[in-house]
Amino acid sequence: MNVAYQGEPGAFSEQSALSFFGAETPTHLLPKPSFEAVFAALECGEADFIVIPIENSLYGSVHVNYDHLRKHDFTIVGELKLRVVQNLLAPTGTTFASIQRVYSHWQALGQSQAFLRQNLPHAQLVDAYDTAGAAKMVASGAYPHSAAVASKRAALHYGLEILAESIETDHQNFTRFLVLSRHQTPAPLAVTKETRHKTSIVFAHKENIAGALFKSLAVFALRDIDLLKIESRPLVGSPWAYLFYLDFVGSLIEERVLKALDHLSEIAGELKVLGTYPEGATIWDA
Amino acid sequence: MNVAYQGEPGAFSEQSALSFFGAETPTHLLPKPSFEAVFAALECGEADFIVIPIENSLYGSVHVNYDHLRKHDFTIVGELKLRVVQNLLAPTGTTFASIQRVYSHWQALGQSQAFLRQNLPHAQLVDAYDTAGAAKMVASGAYPHSAAVASKRAALHYGLEILAESIETDHQNFTRFLVLSRHQTPAPLAVTKETRHKTSIVFAHKENIAGALFKSLAVFALRDIDLLKIESRPLVGSPWAYLFYLDFVGSLIEERVLKALDHLSEIAGELKVLGTYPEGATIWDA
Repeated sequence: MNVAYQGEPGAFSEQSALSFFGAETPTHLLPKPSFEAVFAALECGEADFIVIPIENSLYGSVHVNYDHLRKHDFTIVGELKLRVVQNLLAPTGTTFASIQRVYSHWQALGQSQAFLRQNLPHAQLVDAYDTAGAAKMVASGAYPHSAAVASKRAALHYGLEILAESIETDHQNFTRFLVLSRHQTPAPLAVTKETRHKTSIVFAHKENIAGALFKSLAVFALRDIDLLKIESRPLVGSPWAYLFYLDFVGSLIEERVLKALDHLSEIAGELKVLGTYPEGATIWDA
Repeated sequence: MNVAYQGEPGAFSEQSALSFFGAETPTHLLPKPSFEAVFAALECGEADFIVIPIENSLYGSVHVNYDHLRKHDFTIVGELKLRVVQNLLAPTGTTFASIQRVYSHWQALGQSQAFLRQNLPHAQLVDAYDTAGAAKMVASGAYPHSAAVASKRAALHYGLEILAESIETDHQNFTRFLVLSRHQTPAPLAVTKETRHKTSIVFAHKENIAGALFKSLAVFALRDIDLLKIESRPLVGSPWAYLFYLDFVGSLIEERVLKALDHLSEIAGELKVLGTYPEGATIWDA
């Protein structure tokens, strides 16, 4: 089974893919340089599944991936929430006093800023394209007196020492990942009777419907279907009109969900189901 | 009157500020390197007003500015929509054949990609921090065989020649800007009897209210108040809970608007009015 993700080996996306498919499933991981390349790998058949970040509890949605979800005819088959733990990594034997530069993705540097400012007040914080990419750079030896902020997995992968663990300020830091396939292929996931299902859709309103957004949400509220998330994106070509991405509790095998979507199609000019899938577990860093 | 904006002189934000306050108002413009610095200029009193982009009709919301709106106790006093026109700029006498590199903000390069690929197939497209900043770089002479994608205003400001006008592919490209002040200071704006007013708010739900989002929108729908935009942002510290930013038609002097907000406060744990202001005109590039 081939699973593509964005980033270098050791990236949080890679960790999510491994956690999702589990150690028992023989999984061949395909690192890709961009989200476009990840979606393209699924499109052309190189990958059977892809794992993409969709939102972070501190920074919000990964909006570009919402746009990709609508452009491609893929199906969301699963999700997973990863607790993001940042660590200070450097070549073995590095002392705090010798560190002049710290490389990482700007979000990871931001998350660890309080720790870095207190413990490495003189180090320069340098934006890198990726946390795992920063670990790779530091491990290459081409950047002396440097450290990286990245996952434990990146430390193991690049043979770096963990100088400090869990250096992020806000521990309520989770990233939610989606697992997509070309078809409604059930992902090999342990689903218990207690696991609730979620459905994700995207829609735009027909023109000139008064109170359209309220009416759209009413089709769910009137059937006691709980909404989990709403995300709006611009409807390109129609300035100040929007696409709405909704996540709600329920699956497509439920009559009330089908009725709600049928009702929604009366007011929606465009309506697409992105997938119905078991709600994901929260995974702590390995 | 001091007005701060993000970017170099010649930036679209500068143009918006000038259009908004008009040629008759003596306006001293303060360019700032970041949105943080723009908000800080208003906080400390260096600026009387600030002008910030809040959404683009192709790329969506400027989410970081939504976050700033909530953090600061400023008031939205006006808005303006600017039609974004991109142009190919280079030092006088530059021929298409001699251009090896084109600098601009990645969004502007993306918007002009079809033109650039067709007319400059061998040129390298290089990401710069800012459209006006790219024009400044090219004008400095330190980057030979280069062109920039930026506004006409940037061409004038930096003495560059416009090699090609309006090279963006999608002409439905508008950016909406907000004008903020520290207090409910009416901006010096021509408001006709026909200009409708908008109000912007941000709120989060009390915990455990079933169908909370639907109920929040109902307080407006039940009073025939039209919603214009909803934007969700993460409620930091409460993973998978959200803040909602709403724009609706109506002003705080209307009884039904006050009643709706009062009603909303029954289900909202946090509720803040960001401003009530005349809907902005759409300005074409000068």
